[in-house]
Amino acid sequence: MFSNTTTPSEIRASIREEKWKSLTSGLAPRYTQANLVILPKEQAFDFLRFCLANPKPCPLIEVTDPGSPEPIQTARGADLRVDVPRYRVYRAGNLVAEPFNILPYWQEDLVSFLLGCSFTFEQALLEAGLPVRGLEENGKFSAYITNIACTPIGIFRGPLVVTMRPMTPAQAIKAVQITSRFSWSHGAPIHIGDPKGIGISTLNKPDYGQPVEILPGETPVFWACGITPQAVALESAVELMITHSPGHMFITDVTNDELLLG
Amino acid sequence: MFSNTTTPSEIRASIREEKWKSLTSGLAPRYTQANLVILPKEQAFDFLRFCLANPKPCPLIEVTDPGSPEPIQTARGADLRVDVPRYRVYRAGNLVAEPFNILPYWQEDLVSFLLGCSFTFEQALLEAGLPVRGLEENGKFSAYITNIACTPIGIFRGPLVVTMRPMTPAQAIKAVQITSRFSWSHGAPIHIGDPKGIGISTLNKPDYGQPVEILPGETPVFWACGITPQAVALESAVELMITHSPGHMFITDVTNDELLLG
Repeated sequence: MFSNTTTPSEIRASIREEKWKSLTSGLAPRYTQANLVILPKEQAFDFLRFCLANPKPCPLIEVTDPGSPEPIQTARGADLRVDVPRYRVYRAGNLVAEPFNILPYWQEDLVSFLLGCSFTFEQALLEAGLPVRGLEENGKFSAYITNIACTPIGIFRGPLVVTMRPMTPAQAIKAVQITSRFSWSHGAPIHIGDPKGIGISTLNKPDYGQPVEILPGETPVFWACGITPQAVALESAVELMITHSPGHMFITDVTNDELLLG
Repeated sequence: MFSNTTTPSEIRASIREEKWKSLTSGLAPRYTQANLVILPKEQAFDFLRFCLANPKPCPLIEVTDPGSPEPIQTARGADLRVDVPRYRVYRAGNLVAEPFNILPYWQEDLVSFLLGCSFTFEQALLEAGLPVRGLEENGKFSAYITNIACTPIGIFRGPLVVTMRPMTPAQAIKAVQITSRFSWSHGAPIHIGDPKGIGISTLNKPDYGQPVEILPGETPVFWACGITPQAVALESAVELMITHSPGHMFITDVTNDELLLG
């Protein structure tokens, strides 16, 4: 449906018309995709401070004006109520709907947060010839709850959630070098080696998704995961939270190269 | 009074007891110093978003809990009401006091913002053998109002303010490389060369401070300046704003090397 030269705004138009309701990985690969978290203004200030205090799991890309669904800095003209392929709506911590647009749920006090996602650094790992096992195994996703506490802010508190990618030690070193550059895409790993060191008892049973294979000579490498802010906001059981559905990201007009230059 | 090994907390203790009421440049040189902006919670959310949208002039280091004067992430145990050598108190955009502590002005709804300052990148320039003319000329400071508009957020809007350091073209290239690493200290320059390109008619008359000498073969290099957020907040004439007095910064417990690692 899309080629590598289809622009983000063209893809968002297809999403808006509900022609594309599927995963966004691989679409407009030069452009930064983002996690979406929408909260009422009453919680937004503390959630924003939570993200600032926990930049590895919660790398802020843009925060909208209260009531405005347009992310004017990263995708002028876009509408966050209709330009994501699929949403999740939570009330008091419970998933109540998975709609293709959130027009019926919109309120004038809602603030939208765009947070960096792992697609950016995974693309950079691939370009450097490093393995991304989940992608090799048909887009498998696995994430683990650690015993590392996020810095608590206001009502927001909870454990850091991580993703794991197995690599040889030499590859892991290169992966540290590469991902350190992508601060808006979770940055450098937070742990290498024994999963028990961060409170993960077994890699075979991820808390989210399915496990990936670890080959002989490989060691697990752990990165902060964008599930963290959603899990934390959910745990605080805010009255209303809307997010993208996993893997159904918002595609910005900003390239990874542009963000790299700050 | 202090040696190079005096710790930030020892220096803050002297400041708290009002034994040190002077400039902080050169104190605890390995540690990050910060600009301070204190605003009522009502303005804090938009000001925080303004900083996020304008990261070069307004690099966020920490935002406190409303009502709490303790920056728990970067200086646990410190008290922002007494640990800065000198403050400025503004009411409705007017400077009303320059006290050594702000205990009489404290309110339960105040939020404190710590923003990176140029000391960090100037230290790095010096260590790389590059000139910092203002420091050579007895700590002269000069800043200019440009014709570049900051991204407006809520009530906060205004022009970007910049500092200028003259360098040879070869030095300027190295300075771009070095300062690009220090995103929390204004990052890479925003302009090199003709000041008219950013709306500065003459370098001889800075809008703040005094001009520095430009030697033959040197070109002006411009960086975003931490005066910007204060100038912008002032222009919006918020009911109450408290800042540090220029050059009288807050000294954190975090080293520049730690922040470099993200």
